[in-house]
Amino acid sequence: LTHTLSSIVQAIGGSLVGEDLLVERLSPLETAGPGSLSFVNHGRYARYIQETGASALLVPPALSSVAAQRVRGHIVADDVYLYFARLTQHWRSCERLAAGDAGAPAVHPLACVSPRARLAPDVDVGPFAVIEAHAELGAGARIGAHCHIGVGARVGARSVLRPRVVLGDRCVIGSDGLLHSGVVIGADGFGFAPHSGGQWEKIEQMGAVRIGDHVEIGANTCVDRGALDDTVIGNGVKIDNLVQIGHNVRIGDHSALAGCAGVAGSAVIGAYCTVGGGAVVLGHLTLADRVHVSAASVVMRSIAQPGHYSGVFPLDDNASWEKNAATLRQLHRLRDRIKQLERQT
Amino acid sequence: LTHTLSSIVQAIGGSLVGEDLLVERLSPLETAGPGSLSFVNHGRYARYIQETGASALLVPPALSSVAAQRVRGHIVADDVYLYFARLTQHWRSCERLAAGDAGAPAVHPLACVSPRARLAPDVDVGPFAVIEAHAELGAGARIGAHCHIGVGARVGARSVLRPRVVLGDRCVIGSDGLLHSGVVIGADGFGFAPHSGGQWEKIEQMGAVRIGDHVEIGANTCVDRGALDDTVIGNGVKIDNLVQIGHNVRIGDHSALAGCAGVAGSAVIGAYCTVGGGAVVLGHLTLADRVHVSAASVVMRSIAQPGHYSGVFPLDDNASWEKNAATLRQLHRLRDRIKQLERQT
Amino acid sequence: LTHTLSSIVQAIGGSLVGEDLLVERLSPLETAGPGSLSFVNHGRYARYIQETGASALLVPPALSSVAAQRVRGHIVADDVYLYFARLTQHWRSCERLAAGDAGAPAVHPLACVSPRARLAPDVDVGPFAVIEAHAELGAGARIGAHCHIGVGARVGARSVLRPRVVLGDRCVIGSDGLLHSGVVIGADGFGFAPHSGGQWEKIEQMGAVRIGDHVEIGANTCVDRGALDDTVIGNGVKIDNLVQIGHNVRIGDHSALAGCAGVAGSAVIGAYCTVGGGAVVLGHLTLADRVHVSAASVVMRSIAQPGHYSGVFPLDDNASWEKNAATLRQLHRLRDRIKQLERQT
Repeated sequence: LTHTLSSIVQAIGGSLVGEDLLVERLSPLETAGPGSLSFVNHGRYARYIQETGASALLVPPALSSVAAQRVRGHIVADDVYLYFARLTQHWRSCERLAAGDAGAPAVHPLACVSPRARLAPDVDVGPFAVIEAHAELGAGARIGAHCHIGVGARVGARSVLRPRVVLGDRCVIGSDGLLHSGVVIGADGFGFAPHSGGQWEKIEQMGAVRIGDHVEIGANTCVDRGALDDTVIGNGVKIDNLVQIGHNVRIGDHSALAGCAGVAGSAVIGAYCTVGGGAVVLGHLTLADRVHVSAASVVMRSIAQPGHYSGVFPLDDNASWEKNAATLRQLHRLRDRIKQLERQT
Repeated sequence: LTHTLSSIVQAIGGSLVGEDLLVERLSPLETAGPGSLSFVNHGRYARYIQETGASALLVPPALSSVAAQRVRGHIVADDVYLYFARLTQHWRSCERLAAGDAGAPAVHPLACVSPRARLAPDVDVGPFAVIEAHAELGAGARIGAHCHIGVGARVGARSVLRPRVVLGDRCVIGSDGLLHSGVVIGADGFGFAPHSGGQWEKIEQMGAVRIGDHVEIGANTCVDRGALDDTVIGNGVKIDNLVQIGHNVRIGDHSALAGCAGVAGSAVIGAYCTVGGGAVVLGHLTLADRVHVSAASVVMRSIAQPGHYSGVFPLDDNASWEKNAATLRQLHRLRDRIKQLERQT
Repeated sequence: LTHTLSSIVQAIGGSLVGEDLLVERLSPLETAGPGSLSFVNHGRYARYIQETGASALLVPPALSSVAAQRVRGHIVADDVYLYFARLTQHWRSCERLAAGDAGAPAVHPLACVSPRARLAPDVDVGPFAVIEAHAELGAGARIGAHCHIGVGARVGARSVLRPRVVLGDRCVIGSDGLLHSGVVIGADGFGFAPHSGGQWEKIEQMGAVRIGDHVEIGANTCVDRGALDDTVIGNGVKIDNLVQIGHNVRIGDHSALAGCAGVAGSAVIGAYCTVGGGAVVLGHLTLADRVHVSAASVVMRSIAQPGHYSGVFPLDDNASWEKNAATLRQLHRLRDRIKQLERQT
């Protein structure tokens, strides 16, 4: 599958400078070779242009003249990274057309679809998928092999569930979503009342999960159903792999959570937030819009101000860490000793 | 589906004060409306009673007179939270009856059940489930779609496996358990012997996993089989989503582990313990009964005394964190400087 | 199933001292009983030999005389732990033969295999597995129930996929690998370009995942496909459960990552490294060969020197932790106060 630079410009925009070259793959600058189209995002990478083996480049206006010295044709775009994102989408959709993947969608004969489910006419359902009663699949929805769509669950138009996704009873995902393999939406929240004897009495989780439009959720991530009300994920939210979202959490539009993050029950995360990989947000907290939490940091109090927050023990060679960690356990007493010294001086 | 307050009192206990109202849903105090039954657990939430839109309330004796001023009927119970838990169970079971879910259990014609498996007469097995030879399903066990029950594995009476649970060969779960989607019981423990050359030689994991009665395990959680002996989970243990339990771990009765926690191989956790979300317990440690580990804390030594233990880097704005983290790496030398000052003063 | 000590020595090596006893199980020293074969690795465990109930022992040369006093027969081997690993493999393969598991491999009639897939003649495919077009299964590959092998994906000779593994389109695993249940290879990397408005534009992930030979990957672990180039896992790598490997990560030969670890996108980990449970490696970093990261530590900078690195907040009783954590947030100012005192003194 090859593209001309002009066909790309026609599909996505930008302007072509130099020859209308044929390109056959997208490559990072450093591993690019003949036939590769690569992109340079920032002026600080300009020097790599001199060394790249790419045949063609995608650059911002400020790098156009440098690019022209190295390759016979390049594309100029204002926001190169955004352009690149759209280029990958264009490329992928051309690949699909070429491969015939875009053939007629169909319900696989080995799927198990309740006669009481409602399927739009052009949905695709893979082998061994199970669609329970009263479930609804919107126009163009694609349900992968081994998926399980619970009773009364709903999948919006054009949403894609990769193989082996569980969407629990009454849970809802909007349009244009993408759920990766192993995702579990709508398992029970972790709710138990303590007996006086120290045992736990199950609180049935009566709520569901409501997910907005244009949401992507990574492999093996879990979003629990609410205890009484629903767990709610806003529009445009992006969640990476192996993330845990507890019951009754609410995540505002266009926030992004990286891999292995955990958000405990009833936490509220604003819009346009980012949560780094492995970070933890404790339960019942509220994070304002545009709060950014560093990877592996633990949020233990609500955050009312937008900003960038961190809390990670710095890595050190093991011997130094042991000394510093041991001292850290006496830090409060060290402070008292400093006070004492200040009094004496 | 509606309930009268008197039917609830008849089923669960407590006492009805005022009118025998009809309620149609359970709601949190703050989002309750007409037809809602809400609960108030503590005196400190008494003021919210004034503002709630709920039609009926569940309160402790001390709040009965306040409740009577706001709603025309309420239920009084000694332990409101425990009562609420049982109410959700009652509500759910009435829903199931009404929906006809409690119809005759059956082995789905699209399940793959070994003729050498032993199934109690009233088990339920979903489509595309696989039950291997010598597996045993107890009376009333419910095996969801896409589950895999290994050779010689056993599921106790009334235990429920949601869609897509793996119970490995020879692994056992007791009665009245609940395993959520994506759970993997009995994958191999992480055991390798180092070659002199730095390569790894597999240690076959010969043990299994034994899980007690009344255990709940959350979505995508893993419990590995033991190396020689078994991994053992006690009665009444509750484990949240995405938790990792290593080989040969033993967890005492009625302990609870929150989401994303990790317990490394051969650790022993006592009874009535709690492990917070994202906390890590290193291998070969022993935690006494009634040890409580805060979220995101790392247990690096055995704990012999019951109590509450923590160890988390406090979150701060990123600039402050950077300064403090840099200083932390010199903490040991700071201590030496304080000593030096003390000597001089 | 029983073994004589001589049959073990014949299969694996070492030397038999004393009687050629019959043993029927492998047991840890402390729970061993009649019929048990146990091993002692180090001289420091010599005293446990006096108390063990094992019938037979596996010991290093230095412990042979102590062993001879306690049991009537023992095996002597130079590297006991490595010997033990091979013994478990031998034991397991004898069990399989005895159980008839090693019967003729076959494609289960309830598997869904594309006519355009290429299967070596002696592969085993479980019920409800899906093998897509152009997928290739090498000689002796075993694909468990509910697995999904994507378009053009390849499984090397003798590799085993336990039930419910997803191997995405065009992803490759070499020979003699073992993927545990719930593994997802080849979900999309977490790649989005920010719009000026704060929304996210999907970057299609065009790369794949390439996994070497003799690799084991634990339950519910995820390895994402690369954005443009591939994500690469070297030969002999061992990865535990619930680990996240981001897009374009490269892991060198024979490295091992423990449970719940996370490696962010484009990080490069050398050969013979170990990453402890719950540790996090941030994106775009490079770790040299033979770097060892402690459990729950966070790697925030590249590491050029082999060695052992740590960074974990020490656990304490909760009250002490609260005091020390509060003081830690003023650490930078404490340092300034020390400086001030030094100036004054």
